[in-house]
Amino acid sequence: MMNNKTEAPSPRVVIVGAGFAGLACARALGSTGARVTIVDRHNYHLFVPLLYQVATAALSPADIAEPIRKILRRHRNVDVLLGEVAGVDTANRSVCLADGERLDYDRLVLAPGSRYNYFAHPEWEAWAPGLKTIADARRLRSRLLCAFELAERERDPQRQRALLTTVIVGGGPTGVEMAGAIAELARHALVRDFRHVDPAAARVMLVEAGPRILAAFPEALAAFAHRRLERLGVEICCGLAVERIGADSVRIGGDEVAAGAVIWGAGIRAGCVGDWLGVPVDRAGRVRVDATLAVPDFADIFVLGDSARFDDPGTGNALPALAQVAHQQGQHLGRALRRQLSSEEPLPPFRFRDRGNTAIVGRNAAIFDFGRWQLKGRLAWLLWAIVHIYLLVGFEKRLLVAIQWLWRYLTYQRGARLISGGDDAAR
Amino acid sequence: MMNNKTEAPSPRVVIVGAGFAGLACARALGSTGARVTIVDRHNYHLFVPLLYQVATAALSPADIAEPIRKILRRHRNVDVLLGEVAGVDTANRSVCLADGERLDYDRLVLAPGSRYNYFAHPEWEAWAPGLKTIADARRLRSRLLCAFELAERERDPQRQRALLTTVIVGGGPTGVEMAGAIAELARHALVRDFRHVDPAAARVMLVEAGPRILAAFPEALAAFAHRRLERLGVEICCGLAVERIGADSVRIGGDEVAAGAVIWGAGIRAGCVGDWLGVPVDRAGRVRVDATLAVPDFADIFVLGDSARFDDPGTGNALPALAQVAHQQGQHLGRALRRQLSSEEPLPPFRFRDRGNTAIVGRNAAIFDFGRWQLKGRLAWLLWAIVHIYLLVGFEKRLLVAIQWLWRYLTYQRGARLISGGDDAAR
Repeated sequence: MMNNKTEAPSPRVVIVGAGFAGLACARALGSTGARVTIVDRHNYHLFVPLLYQVATAALSPADIAEPIRKILRRHRNVDVLLGEVAGVDTANRSVCLADGERLDYDRLVLAPGSRYNYFAHPEWEAWAPGLKTIADARRLRSRLLCAFELAERERDPQRQRALLTTVIVGGGPTGVEMAGAIAELARHALVRDFRHVDPAAARVMLVEAGPRILAAFPEALAAFAHRRLERLGVEICCGLAVERIGADSVRIGGDEVAAGAVIWGAGIRAGCVGDWLGVPVDRAGRVRVDATLAVPDFADIFVLGDSARFDDPGTGNALPALAQVAHQQGQHLGRALRRQLSSEEPLPPFRFRDRGNTAIVGRNAAIFDFGRWQLKGRLAWLLWAIVHIYLLVGFEKRLLVAIQWLWRYLTYQRGARLISGGDDAAR
Repeated sequence: MMNNKTEAPSPRVVIVGAGFAGLACARALGSTGARVTIVDRHNYHLFVPLLYQVATAALSPADIAEPIRKILRRHRNVDVLLGEVAGVDTANRSVCLADGERLDYDRLVLAPGSRYNYFAHPEWEAWAPGLKTIADARRLRSRLLCAFELAERERDPQRQRALLTTVIVGGGPTGVEMAGAIAELARHALVRDFRHVDPAAARVMLVEAGPRILAAFPEALAAFAHRRLERLGVEICCGLAVERIGADSVRIGGDEVAAGAVIWGAGIRAGCVGDWLGVPVDRAGRVRVDATLAVPDFADIFVLGDSARFDDPGTGNALPALAQVAHQQGQHLGRALRRQLSSEEPLPPFRFRDRGNTAIVGRNAAIFDFGRWQLKGRLAWLLWAIVHIYLLVGFEKRLLVAIQWLWRYLTYQRGARLISGGDDAAR
């Protein structure tokens, strides 16, 4: 299975996870002397920042998912493997897959991403799904659209009102995006389609335990997003904790709210990297890495992205779970390992360069925080659209997403209103 | 819930099924005095003729599925209902839904479509899925793509070869389309993406029990399709019966063929209309209708599309299960019922106008049979593409499909190569 026979055997690099970090690392190591294997449980790289658009019927899954093989096809030294990692045998330097196969490595890059964190309430996951995979997005789309269908057939006004209520837990960028997108779905795309209910009367609640939404953004930008959400009809409840989530209701600050759909966006937790390596993790499940992104005591193992706890030497804070952090880490490590192939120089330290932080509320309403300067409103929204189309992999996806966004903008319609897959409540 | 209060109560028309027949009927009755309810188990109208492109990763489900509500939104007299029909109470003139609700009717239009017919072997369905729904297409896409992924990891050459073998049962238009599309997927889209297998060596077998493929087409056109399929590398086995289908092999004419995927396209069977009405059905499960598409003995019940047995007065043959037949029947009945609203004239007889029969093999290769004249090759393929884009509902879908086809044509790529939903064999 070796493609290159050189004098010294070329090092084997195993990368776990083909998200932003793993993929950037594999690309940087592409067409070098390293023998690279990238393992993922899906056959595609998912552009997670646009997943909320799949969940709200604006895009199709294939618009934001590109086969990993296709992205890396030019690099003959990179093997792509569809599989589930079960553990790491650090003593024998091999990765164990769920089906029993083992992958030996000289360098191991772990970037499996994160899941939602339900804190002390794992039982809430069944009623309040998060949004991390295509299956999640399809399930959520079905649940949202089904709620309107069931409401249309419901004769009891109280039950009808409950079905038309969506509660979003967590006022971070994910919660804000979902709240805005659901409000626009109801008020624009669905508004003329029903006979017995008024979708525009749908209730969208955004619940945040902290004092304000978008805590990671400057106050002025968060206040702008707050106003815009309210203008869309979203009810924002700050300073209120979710106390219980059930099949069809949520208890918020002592009040029971009957809801047709509950969506979780209140915090994430890193994957199993700590367990795999038998090392301690922080409160969010992340493994602490050193300046070169290596795990202390394991000079040949690196952790990237949402799974890594990297304290920024400038600010002293842990880097947030953002696509740009993961991408920069993957690219940095891939380039560093590539240089190490030719010269035995030590790995350089990673430096994060903040490209700006963004969140979108809806039509003509986004916010950008570039530190020194800030942007909000229509211009920020346009910039958001351009940046996200630019970041998509492949010309075809870019063209298709651009056309669909233009169409949505002109017509207020949504093109992917399918109730399919997941739990189809109507059957 | 009545929108119009007129002197004589306006008649209630219930339409079951929003396929080509049901939808055409509802549209023809739109914005009239009739109170129309259209019931479907899905919230979308599916353009089934392009479903094979979803199964072979060329299009996304949303490209060929449009919400029924959205199509009919202008017609305020039409109610759309997401639900499953459990039976018909002909004595009390009401349709019973699975959830217990009843829909009273004055006129009932039944167009629930068909399922695949496994003849005496219902157990084959688990191993050899047909292609009727989006869930079917997703499952098949996952199975086809997974077979390549598993083959890439397989070290045993015999087992690898088995995984790369696809058997398609039935040499009608569906079987021919699938065989051509799978051969092109392997030989073009996937060919450079794997390291340890050669997708171009994938084996695609088309098995037809009759003496030749495309029996419904003139011999010259079928022979052209046969040659083109062989040029794509498809092995065509005519005159051979499938004797057994198992989890990973098929017995064909006494030989056991190990296969990674088996696809069924060997005949369809109408839905439950016969059971609902308690009337006899023909061998394919169809209910015989009279010249006005009404069921004998039930002047107020009509059956359309794949569920109806309508013998063409011209040829004496039963009309085939084609989209154009269903569409024409739906439109005819809708218009006839509309005229009956104003004047009490009797329903006119239905006349089928043959718009031509078509099948596609692949790039630059389709066939058209217009009776008097025939078309094959690149021109037929272009006509096929234009006709199918024209027949799609909505400008956005047309634009998106046209762009994707152009992109596929120029690059040989497929845009929707997702393994997701259904039985993901790799997990």
